[in-house]
Amino acid sequence: MLKNLTKRNNFKEMKLNNIISEIKRKQSFLCVGLDTDITKIPSVLKTEHDAVFAFNKAIIDATAEYSIAYKPNLAFYEALGLKGWQSLEKTVFYIKERFPEIFIIADAKRGDIGNTSTQYAKAFFETLPFDAITVAPYMGSDSVSPFLKFDDKFVILLALTSNAGANDFQYFKQNNEHLFEKVMVESQKWAGKEKMMYVVGATRAEMLVQIRQIVPEHFLLVPGVGAQGGSLHDVAKYGMTNDGGLIVNSSRAILYASPDSDFDIKAASEAKQVQEEMRKLLLEKKVI
Amino acid sequence: MLKNLTKRNNFKEMKLNNIISEIKRKQSFLCVGLDTDITKIPSVLKTEHDAVFAFNKAIIDATAEYSIAYKPNLAFYEALGLKGWQSLEKTVFYIKERFPEIFIIADAKRGDIGNTSTQYAKAFFETLPFDAITVAPYMGSDSVSPFLKFDDKFVILLALTSNAGANDFQYFKQNNEHLFEKVMVESQKWAGKEKMMYVVGATRAEMLVQIRQIVPEHFLLVPGVGAQGGSLHDVAKYGMTNDGGLIVNSSRAILYASPDSDFDIKAASEAKQVQEEMRKLLLEKKVI
Repeated sequence: MLKNLTKRNNFKEMKLNNIISEIKRKQSFLCVGLDTDITKIPSVLKTEHDAVFAFNKAIIDATAEYSIAYKPNLAFYEALGLKGWQSLEKTVFYIKERFPEIFIIADAKRGDIGNTSTQYAKAFFETLPFDAITVAPYMGSDSVSPFLKFDDKFVILLALTSNAGANDFQYFKQNNEHLFEKVMVESQKWAGKEKMMYVVGATRAEMLVQIRQIVPEHFLLVPGVGAQGGSLHDVAKYGMTNDGGLIVNSSRAILYASPDSDFDIKAASEAKQVQEEMRKLLLEKKVI
Repeated sequence: MLKNLTKRNNFKEMKLNNIISEIKRKQSFLCVGLDTDITKIPSVLKTEHDAVFAFNKAIIDATAEYSIAYKPNLAFYEALGLKGWQSLEKTVFYIKERFPEIFIIADAKRGDIGNTSTQYAKAFFETLPFDAITVAPYMGSDSVSPFLKFDDKFVILLALTSNAGANDFQYFKQNNEHLFEKVMVESQKWAGKEKMMYVVGATRAEMLVQIRQIVPEHFLLVPGVGAQGGSLHDVAKYGMTNDGGLIVNSSRAILYASPDSDFDIKAASEAKQVQEEMRKLLLEKKVI
């Protein structure tokens, strides 16, 4: 099955309008981060040949109703070497096959000189059927542009991240412009909102007012709600647009909602709870 | 063989002194970049079960005499999916086994929040026996520190890269300090020259005078000689220290020195020529 899919490679197109429709249909802007840590998988799955995939599949089946995106975090798969890469492949093809309307983000934070970024783009957009990839901006335009050459694929550029280290360089300031602002201003010359999104950490919700002045309509991928302490309410208050404009990620709170065999049921109920909160926020802002 | 190696995991330690000794012994500071592009491999190898590994092995055997480091570029392996990851594993284990004195750099440009960078560190320093990894600084200290927890392993932080896009953000300036200078100043608080190196593109050789004022003794990994147009002579003139202080990378000029079955002989002669030039520069600067 997987092999045929690779060859066909005729997956559903993923345009910005598809994402917006799904947000409205599911009344949700939840992305489930598949940061699958083999040491945290319930012991009931440990006998599976591919425990990481078995876990992911169960999580996906349980949460797809409440989610509009999945975001495998590459590091967790690479840490397992060849076997991890295999679990990643199976996971991404499974989502594309079973839930073709769902947006799949490679959380990879790549970025290199042009001919190398071209290879990364092949890795994630051709060899694997991801719809989007997170990219680090440090190396500038020619490190990002190879990813932009693919139709119906998105670059999600790091702007203001959720971690403490964001303070080290992202607030570096020339005249009255911070580096993260410069990144958003400059990168708008490379592509519009139909191909580009930005990462803004939920722990920086107060900065969203400023950020929305620079990118009033771009979608933002927002990690940091949950384990990292960001508030969904504040993110929506300052960051939501008429189209929604937000994809909010939750990883650990959903994946590890229970350490036992009911992990998928608990994950579903956690995702449902987030979706219900999101529904209220979408209603308040008249997106739905 | 490979499996046993993984389990033993008792590779030779790679301390800065080992690297310096090898530079003096081989009279070279050449790193061969294994940016192995399957479409450029000589047709004589195309029937091999693992053509990428067969190519790498031939290149390594032909050039090890003249090189102190190898630098597989992750993108080229990831572009091939599972099979590429397999070729990468075989390549890295082959170098460690056959040439344990050679420094192996994962050119991966990774960097993410702490718990994710920890997984990347596992991927490259535990699952695979790399000695060093290139890291992008945008996300700051906590995205880099997980890599620094490993003994006898190095972080090679992007400072000033060789591509045109370097101009977009790396020269961003607060007061009198550019972003790339801030990166070098700040990161010296995280680790010293025994664990940290910097990427400085050969196409920016004139900047090395300024850079040596900030990092007078740190080793610099210098890509951009050859296909990208940088001058080895200028890099040595402005960047060399008493210990050498430079690891200069060449990829395409060596890998694809010939498209025919004599590719390894031509690669060796290209590497030898670079090594001879390096020897002169090391003598001029009295490193040897």
